[in-house]
Amino acid sequence: MDYKAFVEEQIAGIRETVGDQTAINALSGGVDSSVVTVLGHRALGDRLKTVFIDNALMREGEPQQVVELFADMCIPVELVDARADFLGALAGLTDPEQKRNAVTSTFYRKVFGELVRKTGARFLLHGTILTDIEESVAGIKRQHNILAQLGIDPEKEYGYRVLEPLATLRKDGVREVARVLGLPCKVAERIPFPGPALATRIVGEVTDERVATVRAATAIVEEEFGSSGAFQYMAVLLEDRATGIRDGRREFGQIIVVRSIHSVDAREATPVEVPWDQLHRICRRITDIPGVNRCLYDLTPKPPATIEYV
Amino acid sequence: MDYKAFVEEQIAGIRETVGDQTAINALSGGVDSSVVTVLGHRALGDRLKTVFIDNALMREGEPQQVVELFADMCIPVELVDARADFLGALAGLTDPEQKRNAVTSTFYRKVFGELVRKTGARFLLHGTILTDIEESVAGIKRQHNILAQLGIDPEKEYGYRVLEPLATLRKDGVREVARVLGLPCKVAERIPFPGPALATRIVGEVTDERVATVRAATAIVEEEFGSSGAFQYMAVLLEDRATGIRDGRREFGQIIVVRSIHSVDAREATPVEVPWDQLHRICRRITDIPGVNRCLYDLTPKPPATIEYV
Repeated sequence: MDYKAFVEEQIAGIRETVGDQTAINALSGGVDSSVVTVLGHRALGDRLKTVFIDNALMREGEPQQVVELFADMCIPVELVDARADFLGALAGLTDPEQKRNAVTSTFYRKVFGELVRKTGARFLLHGTILTDIEESVAGIKRQHNILAQLGIDPEKEYGYRVLEPLATLRKDGVREVARVLGLPCKVAERIPFPGPALATRIVGEVTDERVATVRAATAIVEEEFGSSGAFQYMAVLLEDRATGIRDGRREFGQIIVVRSIHSVDAREATPVEVPWDQLHRICRRITDIPGVNRCLYDLTPKPPATIEYV
Repeated sequence: MDYKAFVEEQIAGIRETVGDQTAINALSGGVDSSVVTVLGHRALGDRLKTVFIDNALMREGEPQQVVELFADMCIPVELVDARADFLGALAGLTDPEQKRNAVTSTFYRKVFGELVRKTGARFLLHGTILTDIEESVAGIKRQHNILAQLGIDPEKEYGYRVLEPLATLRKDGVREVARVLGLPCKVAERIPFPGPALATRIVGEVTDERVATVRAATAIVEEEFGSSGAFQYMAVLLEDRATGIRDGRREFGQIIVVRSIHSVDAREATPVEVPWDQLHRICRRITDIPGVNRCLYDLTPKPPATIEYV
């Protein structure tokens, strides 16, 4: 595939569709939304408004890092603090579908919807990729970002039209486009990170405290596997607890699962054979997080497991 | 330590204490209770009645295998079917302490208590070992078998006196005694298996169906690690579920944790570095169990984890 031609076509297409109106997009910092941001900015310049919505579910320092990274590329990104909205919507929910729906709904109907109305933007650029569409259609997982495929008309419901310039690509294609666009390699090669963010890494209720626990574990796992070449790696906080001993006393502690996978396009995945020395070290670091006394490694390929837990 | 002398002392001690009265013991098939059964039988002959209580929580075919093994040593063992009693007592319980207490209480107060009354036995031989006592005293875990240390007077409460001939030994010492007694090596070297049996391998509620799931996983793990030389290995069924894909459809499936540890005496433990080929095979076999779509390997040493989960 000629990715240079693809980039030119998409830029021209966005420009033609949007005309002299304005567009908005939400940047998460992942490769998909980063590529869309750059494509949109090249097509529309400052008629594209890009926001980063802090949903309380991001990784350590992530909102600031993403804003700075795009500032370096002369693309202004507005940081929107919506932490209380998302945590409020997630309170008390434990079912994976309900949790994903709470994040989707808070994002589209509340936080982003208000921004769109305020800015008067008529177009939303979105980083949907082919795998998202396929999995949603197959009913495997409700993605947060494929409104049309779910029978939702965003123009009617939210007042804007969704453009999905990456809808024909898989993850590997998006990375190629990122390179063609000259995005920094830390963006082009960034591991996938889901829209509902750390909410997909928490089995059971999402609370501020539980996000803090999985955020600490995520920082360790990303530091350990950052140069491993794995397709994706993550830490997951389970709701189950297990008995343990700390300072000679019984402790009923939390469990973190570490998952690191090889994959080309997220359709299939196999677990990485991590060296044992590293696994032992990761376990020591993870069980130093207050309240955590077990660390498990996920051996399951996709299928039969999905990559995420929620 | 002179284990031959130890055996002679214990046999003489049991004989002297019991005198011309009768004793009873419950055999689980583990090395501790097996050694106590043989010691007691040598001391008392047919004045020791040995029962195997089927609590619905045993492994595949275990009750029959244990009875046959002791029949081969000319020690009669009565098989008592108490499955409904235990499953009834466990229904609805999810707290680890409550589950252990339900098993203890059903065992001592109901099933075994009735047997003792029926037989008129005044002495109970029990396979308590030093590690059980230490951990119960330290409050790390309530063991099922250390009544006196918990301030329970069994003579007053249940009408019998408990003899614990192995209370000064750890697991390695018990195995030496098993060899001195000429027990088959499959008993002497048998991996530890807890009194509350598969109930300690189920996080959340213990039901007939959930026992069947963890029993199937246990059979796979024991077959895979049977000749590994590991101190202990097990399969644990979590209560949490995770998303997966089966035959192209979404599935919210069950999670099995595989744990295999090196240890000398169960006081400390380190995870076994299982070859990756074997881990992948175990994962494939485990995720073939109906309803199971994740297989995790426990990386945690003891401390900070305990060996069991419940």
